[in-house]
Amino acid sequence: MPLVECVPNVSEGRRSDVLDACAEAIRGAGVRLLDVKPDASHNRTVYTFAGEIAAVRAGVLALYARALPLIDLRQHRGEHPRVGAIDVVPFIPLEGATMADCVSLARDVGAQIAADFQVPVFLYEEAASSPARRNLEDIRRGEFEGLAAKLAQPEWRPDFGPAAPHPTAGASVVGARMPLIAYNINLATNRLDVAKKIAAAVRQSSGGLRFVKAMGVELADRGIVQVSMNLTNYEKTPMFRVFELVKREAARYGVDVLESEIIGLVPAAALTASAAWYMQFNDAFGEEQILENRLRRS
Amino acid sequence: MPLVECVPNVSEGRRSDVLDACAEAIRGAGVRLLDVKPDASHNRTVYTFAGEIAAVRAGVLALYARALPLIDLRQHRGEHPRVGAIDVVPFIPLEGATMADCVSLARDVGAQIAADFQVPVFLYEEAASSPARRNLEDIRRGEFEGLAAKLAQPEWRPDFGPAAPHPTAGASVVGARMPLIAYNINLATNRLDVAKKIAAAVRQSSGGLRFVKAMGVELADRGIVQVSMNLTNYEKTPMFRVFELVKREAARYGVDVLESEIIGLVPAAALTASAAWYMQFNDAFGEEQILENRLRRS
Repeated sequence: MPLVECVPNVSEGRRSDVLDACAEAIRGAGVRLLDVKPDASHNRTVYTFAGEIAAVRAGVLALYARALPLIDLRQHRGEHPRVGAIDVVPFIPLEGATMADCVSLARDVGAQIAADFQVPVFLYEEAASSPARRNLEDIRRGEFEGLAAKLAQPEWRPDFGPAAPHPTAGASVVGARMPLIAYNINLATNRLDVAKKIAAAVRQSSGGLRFVKAMGVELADRGIVQVSMNLTNYEKTPMFRVFELVKREAARYGVDVLESEIIGLVPAAALTASAAWYMQFNDAFGEEQILENRLRRS
Repeated sequence: MPLVECVPNVSEGRRSDVLDACAEAIRGAGVRLLDVKPDASHNRTVYTFAGEIAAVRAGVLALYARALPLIDLRQHRGEHPRVGAIDVVPFIPLEGATMADCVSLARDVGAQIAADFQVPVFLYEEAASSPARRNLEDIRRGEFEGLAAKLAQPEWRPDFGPAAPHPTAGASVVGARMPLIAYNINLATNRLDVAKKIAAAVRQSSGGLRFVKAMGVELADRGIVQVSMNLTNYEKTPMFRVFELVKREAARYGVDVLESEIIGLVPAAALTASAAWYMQFNDAFGEEQILENRLRRS
């Protein structure tokens, strides 16, 4: 059975009773809740769960039913931009699932959210109905406070549901995307300018690799700097290439890579593909040679 | 539930009806049969299966019950050394299982084989009852034809069963070991002496890495040479270190590594550990950050 991951971002990061209720609703749908990451200053929590398509669909709808009565965006303050009480709902293909499965699921769940809860829904990334709606940032610009005016514009009619915000829940952005890898590379220097220059060199927005977002940040307590990245498609822009490019750019300033770190989860395939590249595996190598993959499928 | 792999080596590689009967007996025990590798010139077949401890135990005993009446070692000829109709039965810890689990299982199954089938059993590798019995080659020396004389020596009393060969099935060597990785590195040269020198440098027997067996071979059809290796403990002698050492030794002769290849199965952990090393992951990285591991355990 194909497995799908879902990573809903809920606009509540402080009230633990609300967060527990959300977790309980998700678990009750028969999926595996893999991770819960609340952030108090963002006032936002990221849930990660996975399961078969029907169970993941049920998990999202159960989350809406439970969370919407408990969250009022009119009272919500936090550092992270948001347009909805359940702000973003991405579906991600895992073992046996395709991106097409996740696009279908996003459309199906999006229509159901609008029908059941009268929440306007925008489809984004791989599920977007037009190129102008692929980027989450573009959809979310103006946030909850600017949503009524945005929805009134013909080009921002939602994909499903009313062309007006839900009074307390705003709107939701539902879509399909590849797994995201949060990947940081720490440099053996305290020169923030070097980290910023490297970030600019490797990220797509300023001419670098297609599926890399990057910024240079200071780790003041350690006296070092970091290139902090999101890798948004590890198949097309693989980890090893990002690491090697950062390392090469650092060398140009006489700076070494100290270490790197993965924040949160990483698909095994992102690591095994990197091992295969570094150790120069020939074309005969296939992921069915990985014992655990064979076990899952036999 | 802990998972264990079992890789019995059966002394028949030609009669497909016998091989099918063995596969059917294994599958009937409720384990997952992952691989069957017959070799006609060796007249030997390697089965790979996995499952929970009780099912793996049942699988081995079902294999003995089915295979022993069909194989007569007195008639058996093949290039590969063998001491038994079912020659070697290693147990290997997978997900959730420890080496101690596999040592217990080897002792338990070994005693049962002797009791049910009157086959003398030697315990080897991690399950060995003394250091002199750790190595398979030492136990197997003399083969089936020399077995009666060997068993008559006090120091070669079997761990279980009679001190005389089974008339048609000889003896069996049962034990516990780490997964074995068959790993070859191809060199961009046709100089066999270079491959042989590198093999001698990296293998344990001549002073190299503890868990590496290696030889230099010619791939005449491609006009290149290969360092052909078995890695017998990828945790203590990891793949990346082997690859880098071979590459460094090759450079000393002005030779590049062309590619490497894994034959058969490899545990995911051997690859993810290599990715972590090449990309300098910091100590915070743990295998529970690998999405598939989290999925299996939640």
